[in-house]
Amino acid sequence: MIKLLTAIVITSVSLFAAHWGYTGHEGPQHWGDLSPKYEMCKVGKSQSPVNISNAVTVTTEDLAKIKFNYTTEANAIINNGHTIQVNIQEGSSIEIDGKIFALKQFHFHTPSENQIEGRNFPLEAHFVHAAKDGSLAVIALMYEEGKENKIIKKLWSKMPHKAGKSSGCKMLAEMFFTMMPKDKAYYRFNGSLTTPPCSEGVRWMVLKGYSHISKAQKDEFLHLFHHANNRPVQPINARKVMK
Amino acid sequence: MIKLLTAIVITSVSLFAAHWGYTGHEGPQHWGDLSPKYEMCKVGKSQSPVNISNAVTVTTEDLAKIKFNYTTEANAIINNGHTIQVNIQEGSSIEIDGKIFALKQFHFHTPSENQIEGRNFPLEAHFVHAAKDGSLAVIALMYEEGKENKIIKKLWSKMPHKAGKSSGCKMLAEMFFTMMPKDKAYYRFNGSLTTPPCSEGVRWMVLKGYSHISKAQKDEFLHLFHHANNRPVQPINARKVMK
Repeated sequence: MIKLLTAIVITSVSLFAAHWGYTGHEGPQHWGDLSPKYEMCKVGKSQSPVNISNAVTVTTEDLAKIKFNYTTEANAIINNGHTIQVNIQEGSSIEIDGKIFALKQFHFHTPSENQIEGRNFPLEAHFVHAAKDGSLAVIALMYEEGKENKIIKKLWSKMPHKAGKSSGCKMLAEMFFTMMPKDKAYYRFNGSLTTPPCSEGVRWMVLKGYSHISKAQKDEFLHLFHHANNRPVQPINARKVMK
Repeated sequence: MIKLLTAIVITSVSLFAAHWGYTGHEGPQHWGDLSPKYEMCKVGKSQSPVNISNAVTVTTEDLAKIKFNYTTEANAIINNGHTIQVNIQEGSSIEIDGKIFALKQFHFHTPSENQIEGRNFPLEAHFVHAAKDGSLAVIALMYEEGKENKIIKKLWSKMPHKAGKSSGCKMLAEMFFTMMPKDKAYYRFNGSLTTPPCSEGVRWMVLKGYSHISKAQKDEFLHLFHHANNRPVQPINARKVMK
């Protein structure tokens, strides 16, 4: 009986605690075991990120253009211990599948989480949008190594160096939009959050065009966290990537 | 403490028992609560069946032809209490995505589980295939109401009327193949089993062409189970049906 009660206590605690990270016993291979709430990380069959490969070609009118409406300001830049995240004030959105998804925040992973034909990029930004019914849509932007990125420079100058800290960031969402390529063609697939609880039902749109950062900019981000913050690619299973 | 122990006992029992059905407290709305093993029925975001609608058009070479290799015999026709199922001897298979999936069995739902543009059909057959790694591929065939179907007639004449009973059925898999339309064009999507445990990661291919059954044949199947055996359509969420 004591054994059973111990099991209950452990389960209850893990429902609330559940630290996770990118290394050791809290790393991606163990996320699904850290909490019952994170089970999808282990049992989900439509997990992100993926290696974008063997994409099927869809007619242009069927893989519709994303309608962007990025009009508001950022209101904070946060170091949450896992990444640097820029929160956006209410009012910016995209429209896809005839549905409005409000832009909530964007954040970074280094190296990239998704791969394109097996290739990783030094940095990937995720623009996270939520519809009123709670469903999510993420636009991913890859950064190649090249010349310095002025917008990233501004962001890195504001980013808090301590986990849990936040700074003001009155930059326009429109400015972040200019980091994206002019042609917003994208790869699309059905995926999940790339961090616990790894919830599924997420619309993923990975832009085919890239932005750029310098090696020094990549290193500055990497040194802040002392390690990579990318989940390894997950099996594609029964999914197809569309292009 | 007694309360906690009762909770444990109930959980343990439901791990083993977990009856399910199509009506009342064991019906589709409750599957996810009948056993922890059936949780995906409730929390999954890529569940089957679906209403096939707004399908995106994929270039012909990318939505490859299914290669059929139906060569063996059936070895039994079973009434499992949920449906009539025909088990197939080892050796028949399909190839899709460069992967071999062995034909295990096929079974029936009335009315159809999947819908095409909101339309249900009087009967739907599911040909269930499994790859060596355990991943599943289902080919669905719709039956319209029309003239009598001779192959169905033969099957219905052999089907056991009592749940849990099995009969011999030495019919060739090739014969069942002739029920499918000559043109094997299909709708494709990522889905799940349509019965508990509702496991995901299933490749679904719903044939665009139909077979036919008579009203009497439909009624004969329906009267055997006294009720419909179709799970209602599930939200499409972030998925796209390809055609």
